[in-house]
Amino acid sequence: MQKYNALYAQSGGVTAVINATACGLIQTARRHPQRIGKVYAARNGIIGALKEELIDTSHESDGAIEALKHTPAGAFGSCRYKLKDAARNGAEYERLLEVFKAHNIGYFFYNGGGDSQDTTLKISHLGKRLEHPLVCIGIPKTVDNDLPLTDCCPGFATTAKYIAVTTREIAFDVASMAATSTKVFVLEVMGRHAGWIAAAAGLAREEDGDAPHLILFPEIPFDRERTLAQVKRCVEQHGHCVIVASEGVRDADGNFLSAGAAKDAFGHSQLGGVAPLIANIIRGEFGYKYHWAVADYMQRSARHLASRTDVEQAYALGRRAVEMALDGQNAVMAAIVRDTGTPYRWHIEPVALAEVANREKKLPREFIDGDGFFITAACRDYLLPLIDGEDYPPYRGGLPCYVRLQNKMLEKKLEPNFDTA
Amino acid sequence: MQKYNALYAQSGGVTAVINATACGLIQTARRHPQRIGKVYAARNGIIGALKEELIDTSHESDGAIEALKHTPAGAFGSCRYKLKDAARNGAEYERLLEVFKAHNIGYFFYNGGGDSQDTTLKISHLGKRLEHPLVCIGIPKTVDNDLPLTDCCPGFATTAKYIAVTTREIAFDVASMAATSTKVFVLEVMGRHAGWIAAAAGLAREEDGDAPHLILFPEIPFDRERTLAQVKRCVEQHGHCVIVASEGVRDADGNFLSAGAAKDAFGHSQLGGVAPLIANIIRGEFGYKYHWAVADYMQRSARHLASRTDVEQAYALGRRAVEMALDGQNAVMAAIVRDTGTPYRWHIEPVALAEVANREKKLPREFIDGDGFFITAACRDYLLPLIDGEDYPPYRGGLPCYVRLQNKMLEKKLEPNFDTA
Repeated sequence: MQKYNALYAQSGGVTAVINATACGLIQTARRHPQRIGKVYAARNGIIGALKEELIDTSHESDGAIEALKHTPAGAFGSCRYKLKDAARNGAEYERLLEVFKAHNIGYFFYNGGGDSQDTTLKISHLGKRLEHPLVCIGIPKTVDNDLPLTDCCPGFATTAKYIAVTTREIAFDVASMAATSTKVFVLEVMGRHAGWIAAAAGLAREEDGDAPHLILFPEIPFDRERTLAQVKRCVEQHGHCVIVASEGVRDADGNFLSAGAAKDAFGHSQLGGVAPLIANIIRGEFGYKYHWAVADYMQRSARHLASRTDVEQAYALGRRAVEMALDGQNAVMAAIVRDTGTPYRWHIEPVALAEVANREKKLPREFIDGDGFFITAACRDYLLPLIDGEDYPPYRGGLPCYVRLQNKMLEKKLEPNFDTA
Repeated sequence: MQKYNALYAQSGGVTAVINATACGLIQTARRHPQRIGKVYAARNGIIGALKEELIDTSHESDGAIEALKHTPAGAFGSCRYKLKDAARNGAEYERLLEVFKAHNIGYFFYNGGGDSQDTTLKISHLGKRLEHPLVCIGIPKTVDNDLPLTDCCPGFATTAKYIAVTTREIAFDVASMAATSTKVFVLEVMGRHAGWIAAAAGLAREEDGDAPHLILFPEIPFDRERTLAQVKRCVEQHGHCVIVASEGVRDADGNFLSAGAAKDAFGHSQLGGVAPLIANIIRGEFGYKYHWAVADYMQRSARHLASRTDVEQAYALGRRAVEMALDGQNAVMAAIVRDTGTPYRWHIEPVALAEVANREKKLPREFIDGDGFFITAACRDYLLPLIDGEDYPPYRGGLPCYVRLQNKMLEKKLEPNFDTA
């Protein structure tokens, strides 16, 4: 049987477990030397494929590859880069075909979000023009959890766990200080247009009245007066109010609150995200002492608090992606299917890339309560299994041992350099 | 031998391990029923003592008290409240004497920062006026690590570990995205006037060139041009730049940068802390894409990533405070003494409260390198033992099990209510 090399690329914002997918993929490929030659990794995502900057992962020891399982971020580099439209500008696709041909690449694995699944689909269409077969498999990844047709997206569950744990910890802190100090706390979380991460903060609540008291979702237009009334009621009843706000919160006109704050009425640019903005609105109205935090990249790189479920799924997706390729699948994404919620049982199935590409899965309305400020029991049931279990990295001298690969580059065969600028 | 009750109070900003001190104190007191009656805890710190709001900890099970060891924040509530000057307004001190007398309190343990040690000292002076003996022991606590005469302050080491781990994780994230995305990242950390927490971020660096590339300390006046030049050099050399900025960074005139940002040149109030401010300055100068995070309370409540050393010290201080009281010590603070650095050996000794009160220990100049942007080897040697070891809380269903005590209040004996407003 003919043997081809594989190309793996990471795409978009990285996560705490995307390297676990790389680990599953490379370890599985190494177990099939009769079908798969070398696994190359594109340096900095698809840009590396275009520039023929390919990392030869065969130089990495088994130990180094195993350590990817507990190392956050993108070991080969990732990028934010969407291929141009093939119909109007086919140069990038032509270039990819050249690179695939020059390096005998018969398997392409693209590990990313919605845009990346779309790119994978487009590349699979081109495969027919190669003289050798090309198999294209998409692997999901995004902390935003906004891909359709998969129970969840690897990376999300660890961010969800981190935000739930952090919210509970902050809740204990604020509750113990509220008598004389901070009465209102606002934690800003990621998630772009989807409220999945914000929803996960709701898991911190154990009993009625517990924090978080308000969650501000991107799916619910921000209503200043209703929000303020809710905050006031909460402080009067509980002595304090913990708010979790999605970075993607919008006003009734659909404008991002944070973007609105970027300039004041005089056109001066202002600083800060949604959290300081909301905290300021509340202080302006009631004078409550406040604190706020913006977790930003902290929440997507927090491998120290990984969900064991997330690590298992991320690894399994890398493994299954290779198995699917060897089983003759093509133009599919490896997706997680939930068999049962309690206990959480799941398996991985191929779904057509055409069904996945460019579709955004927002938090459904039935996952948000009637008031629009908290999650429902159904949402809780969906989320809880995902954050289950811990998977701590090894530590040395008080710090986690994250691996840095050698990332030895393959010698280039093509000239001249391709310009992605 | 006469038997008296003990009063324990938590003061100021809470930490991830202050409850471990409470645990050590209560467990040790329970082993001396012949000398110590009940352990009362003031509700919301010294305010609870003034208002005669005392929690009877004898209602809490041994299991609940044991669980304090892994529960962050202040289980009995804390407060930001400094007693008024006794010479000019003695009413508060008179009130405390009344409360101590009414509830047969012969031991007072005050768990806090510099202000609290001062308060403990003042209360000890009053003790002579009681008809029964009063022993006053201070126990250190502050994430700012700014108390003198103790090797470190419980709570700091866990925050230090959290910031070091977080900085390393963010460093991996930014490095993998920098080719096409974020080039500059700014993480804002706490510490008030002292750069100890900012310094801890330096532990994330493994090799020359690793993040964090710049640390901005409160001890080094912010120099816009030097900082910008350093950032530029860093981005040119490494492709990105990770900056850790203390909330207490000041300009050459001693003004807080964040306070300076509170109003723009037109007098409009602006939002945000030091991180967005610095990120904005850099963007304005070079146009680099940036992200920033403000860890705020996240960093002081992060019990999920506690330093085992910190938990052990916090617990031991609670235990030793009781032992000191029983040994006849008075008007002292239990302090940590470093015997050796490698391996880290330490013991606890009493130091006179008069020596501790109202003195702030800033980061010494020899802990900051010549450029003023990083820590020295001596600083590293000081910090590393403190973050050593992990001490994870138990988890259930993906979330840490933090205990909430019943906090049953003691019946009041005094009338009327004392007004602390």
